[in-house]
Amino acid sequence: MRVQPLRIVISSARKFINMGALSRLWNLLKNFHAADISSLMKHLTSRERLILFNVTFDQDKGKTGEVLRELEPEDAASILRELHLKQITELFQMIPSDDAAPILELLPDEMKESILAAMEEKPSEDVKELLLYEEETAGRIMSPDFYALDHNTNVSDAITAMQLERDVESAFYLYTIDEKSRLVGVVSLRQLLFARPNTKLKDIMTKDVISVHPETDQEEVARYVADYNLVAIPVVDSENTLVGVVTVDDVIDVIEEEATEDMYKMVSLDTTDRIQDSPFKSIKKRIPFLLFSIITASLAPVVVHYFEGTIEQFVKLVVFLPLVMALGGVAGNQTIAIIVREIAIGQTEWVGARKALFKEIMVGIGNGVIIGAILGGFSYLLIKNPYLGFILGMAIIINLFVAALVGTLIPLVLKLLRLDPALGSVNLLTMCTDSVGALTFLGLGTLFLSKL
Amino acid sequence: MRVQPLRIVISSARKFINMGALSRLWNLLKNFHAADISSLMKHLTSRERLILFNVTFDQDKGKTGEVLRELEPEDAASILRELHLKQITELFQMIPSDDAAPILELLPDEMKESILAAMEEKPSEDVKELLLYEEETAGRIMSPDFYALDHNTNVSDAITAMQLERDVESAFYLYTIDEKSRLVGVVSLRQLLFARPNTKLKDIMTKDVISVHPETDQEEVARYVADYNLVAIPVVDSENTLVGVVTVDDVIDVIEEEATEDMYKMVSLDTTDRIQDSPFKSIKKRIPFLLFSIITASLAPVVVHYFEGTIEQFVKLVVFLPLVMALGGVAGNQTIAIIVREIAIGQTEWVGARKALFKEIMVGIGNGVIIGAILGGFSYLLIKNPYLGFILGMAIIINLFVAALVGTLIPLVLKLLRLDPALGSVNLLTMCTDSVGALTFLGLGTLFLSKL
Repeated sequence: MRVQPLRIVISSARKFINMGALSRLWNLLKNFHAADISSLMKHLTSRERLILFNVTFDQDKGKTGEVLRELEPEDAASILRELHLKQITELFQMIPSDDAAPILELLPDEMKESILAAMEEKPSEDVKELLLYEEETAGRIMSPDFYALDHNTNVSDAITAMQLERDVESAFYLYTIDEKSRLVGVVSLRQLLFARPNTKLKDIMTKDVISVHPETDQEEVARYVADYNLVAIPVVDSENTLVGVVTVDDVIDVIEEEATEDMYKMVSLDTTDRIQDSPFKSIKKRIPFLLFSIITASLAPVVVHYFEGTIEQFVKLVVFLPLVMALGGVAGNQTIAIIVREIAIGQTEWVGARKALFKEIMVGIGNGVIIGAILGGFSYLLIKNPYLGFILGMAIIINLFVAALVGTLIPLVLKLLRLDPALGSVNLLTMCTDSVGALTFLGLGTLFLSKL
Repeated sequence: MRVQPLRIVISSARKFINMGALSRLWNLLKNFHAADISSLMKHLTSRERLILFNVTFDQDKGKTGEVLRELEPEDAASILRELHLKQITELFQMIPSDDAAPILELLPDEMKESILAAMEEKPSEDVKELLLYEEETAGRIMSPDFYALDHNTNVSDAITAMQLERDVESAFYLYTIDEKSRLVGVVSLRQLLFARPNTKLKDIMTKDVISVHPETDQEEVARYVADYNLVAIPVVDSENTLVGVVTVDDVIDVIEEEATEDMYKMVSLDTTDRIQDSPFKSIKKRIPFLLFSIITASLAPVVVHYFEGTIEQFVKLVVFLPLVMALGGVAGNQTIAIIVREIAIGQTEWVGARKALFKEIMVGIGNGVIIGAILGGFSYLLIKNPYLGFILGMAIIINLFVAALVGTLIPLVLKLLRLDPALGSVNLLTMCTDSVGALTFLGLGTLFLSKL
């Protein structure tokens, strides 16, 4: 359990590392959960991290394996690059293959092959198999360790057979297969515990097993687990043979990862950008998106440029321009967030797209009329020019309508194009609302210039 | 399993409902998982929804209970309001109290009391107890059903005792308690299955049990379950007596809910706003935020107003103003997204705030210099005025610096004020970047006016 506040632990750990007081360091760490050690490591420099990792390795290899599993694959790989082949092999043999594969993949090719060659045959094969599947699929996150027995086995034989297998960590189900090794059912360990010893598995198993394929997108796997309240979901190949199991802890990681990705992609941010990265690394990651933003942000200036003549004649128009633009952006961002999130949690499939569009447009017009009337009226009281009030109100109505239209269409079109629905959506939206805001407001201003 | 595409299911279901072909409707539904029926219901009108719910209730009460659990509490409550007290009571007795409580709370007080009075004593008490805890705490989402036995019990007695209890759905652990009913350990059902019958629980139990209190914030509960890869976490009172268990399926709901909330609060959206809401309902939810946006969006116009004189003399400045504003917004949104997400997934506690601020400021300056140089150079090529190029470049550097500063501080200060770190953050940021952008660009323009 977390006993001391993290900041005290961090400062003590750093002090011990830098003093070289390694046994005091281990005294501090030894009762920590592996997850706590790994979150402590996030706050250390790479040199400190390596020292702490080595101390843990010397004292408790099993725990070091656990720590490795809890680290982000990037962080784990950067530590392993500094270790000896023997150490790495030893660690990789301790951790499940679904945790080893993503780390291994980040190591240099040559190193990767020496490790796979040095590992024992079974774990090495398991890892190689996982690496065959594409990233972000069920095949990549599944564990090849699970309990599976013939459905004609009886309960007491099943328990004995399971005991003889190597311990399947975090197993909550026993899967049942037929003569041809096809998945036919599932028995929870609780059912097994309460069943009579001579009952056959096929008499207690649940037959409608929800399963996925190795190619299934990890986000879809997460949806099944979340929607059907599962703790694990079996992965079967095209012959319905069981090849692995995705457990709920991996699903939680997927859900958090995808939520981060949605938010990051909305605001045009690289999904690997982290607060722990060096400024230089983050600049490198953000610059491409800012260059893209120069392009999207340049449309509005072009529009404004065409109305320079109007502005010269009535400069007050410029004062209200940022207001029209900003409110379009706010309303459009609301729509984007709703659509992106509904797509992510799977409530809107294409069936709802037309309905969603219609609804958001109605909301855009409704809000536009209210906000437009308020601001139009307010500006009239301020400037005493009814035409300016009218122009401002109309520009806001039109811009909020466009914000709703574009805010709904951007994620839907991105999805149709098989891109991420959130990708750069806020930038694209701002491009539209800024330029349409300028176009309608300055355009109307030009039309009514004689009245202003 | 999902066999037919959702859109076909929806249109068939609606057809059958509106034709009154209720037995055909049931034929369509009967093999569906409860989660699928509930997601189908999201696409129906409230009249259709009620008919479908009643058909399911008539045919399979158990499944109807499941469906009720899968619905959003708001949707469930709106259906229950139309049912008879007897029906409601029957349903509530079937579903776990942690699912019943949030629905019950949305019903009118009088109805709520009649239901609690009509329910059997035990479930009624369980629900009342959950309602004592505040919303969004462990107490609210925990289930009061779990297996707990004295740690001196031996394995075979434990299994018999568990069998005699009413079935604890989705139980994966047996908790062990001492003479004073205090939680002392946990045994997984897998360990129980493989242990010798006469082993005492205390000899196989894991002693360091990670637990939470009923008042613990649900987000913190979710962090423990996610970080320590748990499937359930026990809830204990101040005497360390076990009062409930939060299971991973509820934790997944919390994680998704919080991710939605973060994104919604960032863009100033009510967290209950849904695509299925009527336009009128959504307008009502969004107007308060848009009114707040009028205030935040009004600062930039005030700034621009002060520079009307400058603009009259050199109108070209206005053309580039939207560019300065937009790029500040883009860079600031990136920073906000990073900080909000890091706070949410618990990687940055206060220990990292100063570091985060320093890092983002470095990134802001770095990106500002690069983007400022590009745009300054580009505008020089376009307009052939070196002063304009310089002003534009400088304004962008300053605005990206401010974006980084404000983008980091807004979520951190909101958190310090014990508000949600994401709350209205994008609006507040835009207020700053729009006005600072206008101030620096038009201010510098005024200074160098004679050279433009």
